[in-house]
Amino acid sequence: MKDSLKQLDARHLKFVEDRNWQKHQSPKNLVMALTAEVGELVEHFQWLSREESWTVDGKKKEAVAEELADVLIYLTRISGELDIDLVAAAHEKCERNEHKYPVEEFQDGYKRPHEYKDKDKY
Amino acid sequence: MKDSLKQLDARHLKFVEDRNWQKHQSPKNLVMALTAEVGELVEHFQWLSREESWTVDGKKKEAVAEELADVLIYLTRISGELDIDLVAAAHEKCERNEHKYPVEEFQDGYKRPHEYKDKDKY
Amino acid sequence: MKDSLKQLDARHLKFVEDRNWQKHQSPKNLVMALTAEVGELVEHFQWLSREESWTVDGKKKEAVAEELADVLIYLTRISGELDIDLVAAAHEKCERNEHKYPVEEFQDGYKRPHEYKDKDKY
Amino acid sequence: MKDSLKQLDARHLKFVEDRNWQKHQSPKNLVMALTAEVGELVEHFQWLSREESWTVDGKKKEAVAEELADVLIYLTRISGELDIDLVAAAHEKCERNEHKYPVEEFQDGYKRPHEYKDKDKY
Repeated sequence: MKDSLKQLDARHLKFVEDRNWQKHQSPKNLVMALTAEVGELVEHFQWLSREESWTVDGKKKEAVAEELADVLIYLTRISGELDIDLVAAAHEKCERNEHKYPVEEFQDGYKRPHEYKDKDKY
Repeated sequence: MKDSLKQLDARHLKFVEDRNWQKHQSPKNLVMALTAEVGELVEHFQWLSREESWTVDGKKKEAVAEELADVLIYLTRISGELDIDLVAAAHEKCERNEHKYPVEEFQDGYKRPHEYKDKDKY
Repeated sequence: MKDSLKQLDARHLKFVEDRNWQKHQSPKNLVMALTAEVGELVEHFQWLSREESWTVDGKKKEAVAEELADVLIYLTRISGELDIDLVAAAHEKCERNEHKYPVEEFQDGYKRPHEYKDKDKY
Repeated sequence: MKDSLKQLDARHLKFVEDRNWQKHQSPKNLVMALTAEVGELVEHFQWLSREESWTVDGKKKEAVAEELADVLIYLTRISGELDIDLVAAAHEKCERNEHKYPVEEFQDGYKRPHEYKDKDKY
């Protein structure tokens, strides 16, 4: 995990430990807490059109930022608890994706990932 | 967003643009993609006990790291698309939490967040 | 729960008990399993446009039906385990919704639920 | 879909149509709404121990019943919109599961589904 996320996780972990919550924060429970926050994020987008989803602003943008923040906090906490370097893992995943979806396969049109992977089905 | 996440997001955005996927990546769709990755993360933990969830290792740990990475990638992409500084938003959320749950309220026992907030119900 | 769901739940519970899985199937774990299935459902819809989402067919429709089925199975299992009458609860919720969103408030246009509830914010 | 679910879906669909919401209720959006409700369900269980999750009662049980109801309502609405017979699909899934996890493989112990499927990895 890079410094900015380490610092964030250290701050949140101190917050948790200061309140005696650490024993409830198993990776299993943290994964559930992450899921619940994602549900709140989804709620902000569920009735929006594609176009509207680009133009959230004002109070709604603040609320969305808060949900994204909650997800990041739990994500770094799970990674911290399991000793996983989150940013390194993300770069490894980017690398795998870059090979899995060769750029030249997508030059001729607008295939989406699932249309490429499942191309025999379409 | 701090540098390490900006760099990650720039890499993933280039990957997306190189494959002509950008038009499918509305914040709405990205929120759905994030949700699907969270579902895969949950799958690794659903039948584990609390204790087992701390000891994922080997291939399972690699798989969990990959799901966490996927969540981070979509999380930074949503933030990038909406021009939200994710790490700053997380620190603001930490600040709000530190006030919402005053540390002295939790010294006498093991109240969990919901037992404090909903304390009149318990 | 009405007969058809009771019968479904009894069949699935027998399947679980015959395999000695019952001890893993706490409501907590079942909620996680439900979440993971919802993630798979979301995956089928994440890159589709609004219009495309109405026209899933063939193999994709079969796959969607299977995910919906998985969600129903876990939903009835959670309800069974907690002794909750799912269909009765759904009708009670319909009743509350019918009062919460009075029909005359929506005659003049196309307000969505969140625009009505949060109307002071818009 | 069996009669009790058909009746539930017809009631909810009328509620939606009476408020001019139908155009927002694409299967894609309904899947998101389902996800958000599942997030609320998860929130009730995230900090509970396995044992506590069996003993939710009083106001918490009512709240859980309401979330389960919301999930069922969206589940039947998605099925209705896509013309999928939800209960029939669930029985087909049970049938597939009964073959996929042969009962005799689970007599000797307490293997969980993922330990059976991934047994070469353990």
